[in-house]
Amino acid sequence: MPVASDVILNTGVLIYHPNLVNLYGCIVGSETKIGAFVEIQKGVKIGRCCKISSHSFICEGVIIEDEVLIGHGVMFTNDLYPRATVNGSLKTDEDWNLVETIVKHGASIGSNATIRCGAVIGEHAIVGAGSVVIRDVPPYAIVAGVPSVVIGDVREKGV
Amino acid sequence: MPVASDVILNTGVLIYHPNLVNLYGCIVGSETKIGAFVEIQKGVKIGRCCKISSHSFICEGVIIEDEVLIGHGVMFTNDLYPRATVNGSLKTDEDWNLVETIVKHGASIGSNATIRCGAVIGEHAIVGAGSVVIRDVPPYAIVAGVPSVVIGDVREKGV
Amino acid sequence: MPVASDVILNTGVLIYHPNLVNLYGCIVGSETKIGAFVEIQKGVKIGRCCKISSHSFICEGVIIEDEVLIGHGVMFTNDLYPRATVNGSLKTDEDWNLVETIVKHGASIGSNATIRCGAVIGEHAIVGAGSVVIRDVPPYAIVAGVPSVVIGDVREKGV
Repeated sequence: MPVASDVILNTGVLIYHPNLVNLYGCIVGSETKIGAFVEIQKGVKIGRCCKISSHSFICEGVIIEDEVLIGHGVMFTNDLYPRATVNGSLKTDEDWNLVETIVKHGASIGSNATIRCGAVIGEHAIVGAGSVVIRDVPPYAIVAGVPSVVIGDVREKGV
Repeated sequence: MPVASDVILNTGVLIYHPNLVNLYGCIVGSETKIGAFVEIQKGVKIGRCCKISSHSFICEGVIIEDEVLIGHGVMFTNDLYPRATVNGSLKTDEDWNLVETIVKHGASIGSNATIRCGAVIGEHAIVGAGSVVIRDVPPYAIVAGVPSVVIGDVREKGV
Repeated sequence: MPVASDVILNTGVLIYHPNLVNLYGCIVGSETKIGAFVEIQKGVKIGRCCKISSHSFICEGVIIEDEVLIGHGVMFTNDLYPRATVNGSLKTDEDWNLVETIVKHGASIGSNATIRCGAVIGEHAIVGAGSVVIRDVPPYAIVAGVPSVVIGDVREKGV
């Protein structure tokens, strides 16, 4: 079931290839478009008029507001020190501290970027392709690099 | 339709898993091999005897010449300041300035590399795995890092 | 055949979406879980109680011991200077020097990390999300960055 029965899709959501995605337990806002090879986990909320590009992974604990662009191959995280097991047995949801991440209205995340959990990506900010974000991104900032630093302001660029 | 009817595949193209790719409006040269979970967009031209590895994304505006290797999870881009919307509505093709990228004859792009649009990757150059390319790569250069810098010459390595 | 007939799955292996993976010629240990959009190549051995997360690529030449976590979008490599062709024809297995990589017991690789072949990731080490690993990672080390460097010790963090 590539789009699970518990997914809530609002009006006009477009999933280009429903058989090539993995969505479960999430809510997707109206008019949002979702590309191929995307996984969106339970508890995720995505706003209206977003673009979620191919190959991206949006994990539990992520909130994406309206008019956000998620590039291709973007990876969110929700665990600072991930482990497969605890005391030799596979971890379960109970063994795990979820850290939340939020992408605010109108922001854009460039392709292949990695977002460390706990970060707030500010309104209309742009995260450069290939960046690793490890702290909050101010509204309207352009950030890039590993770890990402502010390299400009979208208002100066007219974008 | 994971391989759309408008895709032009020349003689001997091998798509290992036609149901696990997303190709549309592109031209693929003879003998080229394409892995799983690959997306290739409209307008892309790929040369002969290329290897396009799994999980890679090749967007509109990219030209790939002959004998090129694209590693796994490579992401191309075609928009320096991507946005989901303009004036509150989803962007369309008309709202968008395409920036072209070219990968020249015999070059190799390492896995998980990110290519900022506008770059020319020179003949026989090698882009190291995980690099973020933000400017042209000279012919025969080996580049690596974020952003990528020249760290060697393939002729000295005999590769 | 997204899970090829030559794959050996031990007791209790869980592949969430067998039609959205590409596994061939590999051995997977008991209780290990494998996410969507994962490719695992021939010759790979994966231990018991591992978690192989979505969008990851595990190539020939990689050995993963027990209780290892592979994050989302992790790319392994097995060729330092990859090329599509030799003397104008596509390379075959005979034209290719495989370099091995090992991930030791209990280690974790963060999402979007890239692992250059030849590295040994030590027991219980953690590789930060988005890192590019180009040399061995000591046991219990926490590494991050491009290229990755040691930034801590898991025993000090209690993880």
